Amino acid sequence: MQEKGISQAVIGRLPRYLRYLGELKENGVERVSSQELSTLMGVTASQIRQDFNNFGGFGQQGYGYNVDFLFTEISKILGLDREYNFVIIGAGNLGSALGNYLNFERRGFIFKGIFDKNPELVGKDVRGVKVKHINDLEDFLRNNAIDIAVLTIPKTGATLLVDTLVENGIRAIWNFAHVDLDVPEGVQVENVHLSDSLMKLSYNISRYDREKK
Amino acid sequence: MQEKGISQAVIGRLPRYLRYLGELKENGVERVSSQELSTLMGVTASQIRQDFNNFGGFGQQGYGYNVDFLFTEISKILGLDREYNFVIIGAGNLGSALGNYLNFERRGFIFKGIFDKNPELVGKDVRGVKVKHINDLEDFLRNNAIDIAVLTIPKTGATLLVDTLVENGIRAIWNFAHVDLDVPEGVQVENVHLSDSLMKLSYNISRYDREKK
Repeated sequence: MQEKGISQAVIGRLPRYLRYLGELKENGVERVSSQELSTLMGVTASQIRQDFNNFGGFGQQGYGYNVDFLFTEISKILGLDREYNFVIIGAGNLGSALGNYLNFERRGFIFKGIFDKNPELVGKDVRGVKVKHINDLEDFLRNNAIDIAVLTIPKTGATLLVDTLVENGIRAIWNFAHVDLDVPEGVQVENVHLSDSLMKLSYNISRYDREKK
Repeated sequence: MQEKGISQAVIGRLPRYLRYLGELKENGVERVSSQELSTLMGVTASQIRQDFNNFGGFGQQGYGYNVDFLFTEISKILGLDREYNFVIIGAGNLGSALGNYLNFERRGFIFKGIFDKNPELVGKDVRGVKVKHINDLEDFLRNNAIDIAVLTIPKTGATLLVDTLVENGIRAIWNFAHVDLDVPEGVQVENVHLSDSLMKLSYNISRYDREKK
């Protein structure tokens, strides 16, 4: 799971760097030192230098980092120098919310289709895209170059759907179903297990209480 | 950020253990070996033993782990032996989706209120809870014991709201806004930055392509 020794921990931090660099760019800032980034982001300057060294540095002594260049390089590393088409499976509230996120489009993730098994949802408009019946999914995937499937359906449905997705060219699954999916090599899965995230909160609340006692 | 030397990485894995143990429980399984759990979960048996050793083991040589006991102990560590009341700020698709999640209630997270600044959403029903106007939030927090605020609003609104939440007793923020929040010590924040998660997918897709070349 590594590329040239870059750990997933570093990769995991890149989107946050990109967010801050994007804001600096928007504010017309042209260069930034690791010290300034450190203050802004609440991580140590040495962590920042170490992280950027993984990709060859990007910085110049006494000048700092060129914001635009750094933004572009990190974008490339994250694969954001191209577009990705995605479909959403599950047109409930969560699926609709994700279809409506304009931010994804700005990053190059293009919303191409949304599907549901519930006939009552078919035809509903999600940001200009009409919900289609799940029975039309295979045909749609065969006739459109879709990279990513977003699963916002219950876990049984998600597990059953994986083969269909993979056989029809899906390369990555963004999985909101509360289940671990079994995919062939070369297919990427990123899980968003919302309950797990909520439990980190309850852990931290209760730990804080135990320590105060 | 540590308790008796337990790393956040271990804590982060506990909800997944809990999910698998919950399924074993539902299927009537009474005990399980680290080897069986390993096969089921796709992690090494030694990782499982190491993780559980952090909390004093729970296992008996030759017997394995008692599923029910392990489930209960991990629940306690995660702070799930009590209930938490939460409100949602932002009654759009994402806020409504989270309000409708029955799973949270099963884990002891009780949905108490939902707020929005859009008057058109006020009065809308989300699983039996009527959307209130954001102006009523302070009063509501003062008169109800709410532990957790879930922020499903844009980043500017989220930043502005933090003080109000903290001053009125909120102990934890589950933040879906695409911004890092500044909170006083003792207030817990857990971020769900959806774009960041999506970028891990694009990174993995493009890395896979680079390695294939």
